[in-house]
Parts: sequence; C-alpha cells; structure tokens
Amino acid sequence: MSAQCELCLVIDNQEEDILWNDGFCYVRSVADPYYPGFCRVIVRRHVREMTDLSQKEREHLMSVVFAVEKSLREVLRPDKINLASLGNAVPHLHWHVIPRWRGDRHFPLSIWGSPQRESAPALPAPDFQNLAAAIAAALPRDTHEY
Amino acid sequence: MSAQCELCLVIDNQEEDILWNDGFCYVRSVADPYYPGFCRVIVRRHVREMTDLSQKEREHLMSVVFAVEKSLREVLRPDKINLASLGNAVPHLHWHVIPRWRGDRHFPLSIWGSPQRESAPALPAPDFQNLAAAIAAALPRDTHEY
Repeated sequence: MSAQCELCLVIDNQEEDILWNDGFCYVRSVADPYYPGFCRVIVRRHVREMTDLSQKEREHLMSVVFAVEKSLREVLRPDKINLASLGNAVPHLHWHVIPRWRGDRHFPLSIWGSPQRESAPALPAPDFQNLAAAIAAALPRDTHEY
Repeated sequence: MSAQCELCLVIDNQEEDILWNDGFCYVRSVADPYYPGFCRVIVRRHVREMTDLSQKEREHLMSVVFAVEKSLREVLRPDKINLASLGNAVPHLHWHVIPRWRGDRHFPLSIWGSPQRESAPALPAPDFQNLAAAIAAALPRDTHEY
C-alpha cells in the first residue's frame, strides 16, 4: 500500500459503481459521459506491472478483464473493445475496458488521442445490474474462490 | 483472412524485425524513433477481439505479451510498461507493448495523447538479438509447440 496512491483506497464493495469484486481485484464502472459502459479492473494490492504478479494472479486478472469484455459485448454490442494497462500517472495495476463506437468522440483514435468530433452521438448505456449479472455469469466459478 | 487488412500479410519469419514467432502469433519490433523497444504481438488469423479467441488461445497470446513485457524490463529497465489492444483502425487482434520513460515524448500520457515535449531525450535502445533471446527464454517451453 502506498499512502500517495489514489488507487490504494479501501473500497466499499457495496458502492453501486462496483460491478464485481473478490479478494484480489474489483471491477468499477467509470462515470465518463463520452464512454458509457467504460469499466476499470483494479488490483487491490499496490503493484506496478503485470509481470510483478505471479502467473496464477495474471491469469486470474485477465480472466476478469475478458469477462468484462464479453459482458460489454453482450450487453452493448459496441463496434470495438479497447483494452489497456497504462499506469504512467498512477502506477497501480489497473485495466481499462472501453466499448467503442464508430461515431464516438475519438474514433478511430484511442480515447487518449485528440477528439475527432465535438459532440458525441447518444451511445447505448448499460443497465448496471444487467452488466454486473453478465460479469458474474461470465467468470468461471472457481475464480470466485481466488 | 481479409484482403483489406494490412495485418493479414504473409510474414517472412526471417525478417530481422520479427523477434519471436509460432504458428499462432508473432512479435515484431516497431520502428518508432521515439519509442525504442516498442513491440507488437500480432495474431496470424484475422480475428477482432480477445473474446473471439478460445480460452487456450487467449492464455497463449497473453503469455507471449507478458514474455515481451518481462524481456523489455530486463533488457531496458524502463520506468513503466504500457500494454494495449485497441484495433479501431485495424481490427485485427494485436497488442502494443511499449517501454516508457519519464522523459519520453508523451509521458505521463499514453503515446496516443498529445506530445508533452518536442525533442525526446536519447532513450536506451535494445540489442534485438538480446531481446529476441530474452523473449525465447521467457516463454515456457510448451508454448513453442502451440
């Protein structure tokens, strides 16, 4: 744990933007008006890189990332999914899982590029209960016991 | 295979920028003057998303991505590694593995953000033979038989 790290917070697992969690990581819905459905998968421990995790931890974390991707595709049917683990500003391991649409604010650039249009079209937004249920259904049962 | 896709190319496994390859994917060194060591891991088959792969294929692909991360860390000792699978412009599954330094052209933004400085400092560049050897050593033997 790092006192300076904004992701080293004790989270309340009952917060409504927490879509899934276990002892190792949690899935948070990101309130981004341009990107409804944007989720982050955040490791609880203060760790920097994927290769700082054990192989078992890496596989578990990616199984959560891919469960979120699968669920977002089922619930929203976006044109593309973007996945990224950057952490230059906040070097505490977390994954961005971002549903993208051809008409969205930055398409075809990454959401960290220059906006391609000023006003984004109204995009499909998920029902969070449905999304949380889809994520839980997509995760193999044994990973819940991690 | 898609005739319109620039990643649906028959690659010559002997090209000097191919650092590692097997029947499923290959690792290419990206000639980016601002980001020495930048690598891409590219699936051979024309497939769009991670969740279009089987679980076994996903695990294999990520083991290659993480082998590249581990090798870049060993060889270059960057301040951070960035990982991303975007594919908005080229929806053929590929991963960016990017060594980052505090003084590089975009730090702390992603390399897809606005440049933060005009001239980047001279950054450590890998010896490609060393990097290729490190990737081969980092991959569990059984993945070579994929």
